[in-house]
Amino acid sequence: MSTFAQRFDLDLPLVQAPMAGSSTPALVAAVSNAGALGSFGAGYTAPEGIVERAAEIRALTSRPFALNLMVLPDEFMPDTAAIARARTLLDALMEREGLAVRTRLPERWAPRFSDQFAALCEARPAAASFAFGLLETAQVRQLKQHDIGVIGTATTPTEAVAWAQRGADAVCVQGAEAGGHRGGIDGSASAPMIGLLALIPCARRALDQAGFRIPLIAAGGIMDGAGMRAAEALGAEGSQLGTAFLTCPESAAADAWKRDLVVATSTHVVTIRSVSGRAARGLRNRYVEAMESGVDELPGYPFLNALTAPLRRAAAAAGRGDLMSEWCGQGVPLTRALPAAALVRALSDEYRRGA
Amino acid sequence: MSTFAQRFDLDLPLVQAPMAGSSTPALVAAVSNAGALGSFGAGYTAPEGIVERAAEIRALTSRPFALNLMVLPDEFMPDTAAIARARTLLDALMEREGLAVRTRLPERWAPRFSDQFAALCEARPAAASFAFGLLETAQVRQLKQHDIGVIGTATTPTEAVAWAQRGADAVCVQGAEAGGHRGGIDGSASAPMIGLLALIPCARRALDQAGFRIPLIAAGGIMDGAGMRAAEALGAEGSQLGTAFLTCPESAAADAWKRDLVVATSTHVVTIRSVSGRAARGLRNRYVEAMESGVDELPGYPFLNALTAPLRRAAAAAGRGDLMSEWCGQGVPLTRALPAAALVRALSDEYRRGA
Repeated sequence: MSTFAQRFDLDLPLVQAPMAGSSTPALVAAVSNAGALGSFGAGYTAPEGIVERAAEIRALTSRPFALNLMVLPDEFMPDTAAIARARTLLDALMEREGLAVRTRLPERWAPRFSDQFAALCEARPAAASFAFGLLETAQVRQLKQHDIGVIGTATTPTEAVAWAQRGADAVCVQGAEAGGHRGGIDGSASAPMIGLLALIPCARRALDQAGFRIPLIAAGGIMDGAGMRAAEALGAEGSQLGTAFLTCPESAAADAWKRDLVVATSTHVVTIRSVSGRAARGLRNRYVEAMESGVDELPGYPFLNALTAPLRRAAAAAGRGDLMSEWCGQGVPLTRALPAAALVRALSDEYRRGA
Repeated sequence: MSTFAQRFDLDLPLVQAPMAGSSTPALVAAVSNAGALGSFGAGYTAPEGIVERAAEIRALTSRPFALNLMVLPDEFMPDTAAIARARTLLDALMEREGLAVRTRLPERWAPRFSDQFAALCEARPAAASFAFGLLETAQVRQLKQHDIGVIGTATTPTEAVAWAQRGADAVCVQGAEAGGHRGGIDGSASAPMIGLLALIPCARRALDQAGFRIPLIAAGGIMDGAGMRAAEALGAEGSQLGTAFLTCPESAAADAWKRDLVVATSTHVVTIRSVSGRAARGLRNRYVEAMESGVDELPGYPFLNALTAPLRRAAAAAGRGDLMSEWCGQGVPLTRALPAAALVRALSDEYRRGA
């Protein structure tokens, strides 16, 4: 049994990836009740909502669970010209596609991180995971004072060491295979895309050389118990699966998106920036074809993410998966649409069968 | 023991990757003598040279070995404008860097494939592996009549099925982590880069669904016995390692290149097209900085590859690793510079320790 699993009292060294926008209290609780670590992606959630979601999860499970935030500055300096360009293009696209919504300037480009962080401390999950940036050492200390385990996200060995230096209890190493946003500190288009099979042992080596013994959680392309065993053979103490849980009935991913995942092949999966301004992996669809080629002229995260939100909601309501952000990892052909508890049981059986 | 290992009488389900230009008869023989499958990359070798290299290998080992070819058309239609642009840029670079060579139009852009194929049949290696394209069914049959095992290279599940349909005995699935050229059928800039951890089970699934039971050999980012075990957990019957063998004394990689590999980190490794016109993975160096941004204006494979050959030779002679193609995979931080036999022994010990 891994130290990571012991720390969070898990029957299986498995984390359900946070997936902001698609995770729900019901999904998180079902996973935690089944003996793995459920995670709620609270990056898009206002501070008061974070406390509420945590209460909803606690009403459904007494087991440990995680909350996830995106580490962002409190305020942003918008590039007004790029924002205007994006609005023109997006409004034209929505008109062309017959969607009766238009972009608008949001009240806030993203929830204020320091307020989210305070809400997270108040919510006291067993674990908090972080993406998109690095916490300050004082923030890590504050979480530990609240008895919250700290999991950083790294896409390179150097980022893994940076999280260890800040005092993280574990690092989630996200391979190039992973669906959704690149969660590392460097989210630029030129950031390296390191396959998980190379990333795990290279991050382990870098941590060893820097004198850190903290566990690695492997994320990216893992869809079954065999993948979990492979990650362990490479030096991880646990696996984080996202795409595998997206098609659960408890996930909030739109039905059209779920339907597209079930029939997707490996060659449909691409890395794009035109949904949110930050590199992310999902299906190549009509939206991607229309917007990705001009992405260098569009604003970055979180501006573009806020501007595309009305389109995503309208597309979901209209059953238009082809106009949404259909995030998924490169393991998507292995998708099975099971309830979360049944999926965790299946993963556990496969994992133990080979162990 | 895997059926692949049985078929080629291997003590260890390990293939040394062909690495045209860096493999040598000494390397191939040392690997085969140590109980794995050595491979000579004959893609750049003229037909008569192929027969000679095979004889040299046989003088050093009685064990099975493999020859590798790139499946290319016999004749090419050069884009003279793109070739002229490349010559101007390359000549200016060599002048700037003080190298006293210049580009020239070669007699042939690449060896004639059908003649190489005939030479390969004459050389009768135990196995022949192929990259860059798909053989005709009749060619596969011809190899089998010569008792030569056929291994195709695939970078997607669809390509793996295509090789199976042509009658290949095994498919080498090359993950995005792999060093050197993308060896699949689609070598374009937009071809998918699928991480090995997702590619192996997705290719296995696609082959199963198409009714093929042939073994998969996993390539890309594997540097040690733990990586070999991980590949097996995912459904491969063997592993192909290239970068791990590049730094062997028996490898023909230039000393400057070997020195740079030993100190490289994960973030130095990029995918480029500006060396050969085909996507390939190696270190970001001075050559890449100078040439990659304009790659869309340069000719494709094999034209650019032929035009850059004088520069690569001159740079190697001058000890200028920064001006060469320093191919390597994303596992390069795990490099150890051991003689080939010692490396195979170390891999075997690690592989069995965890088994």
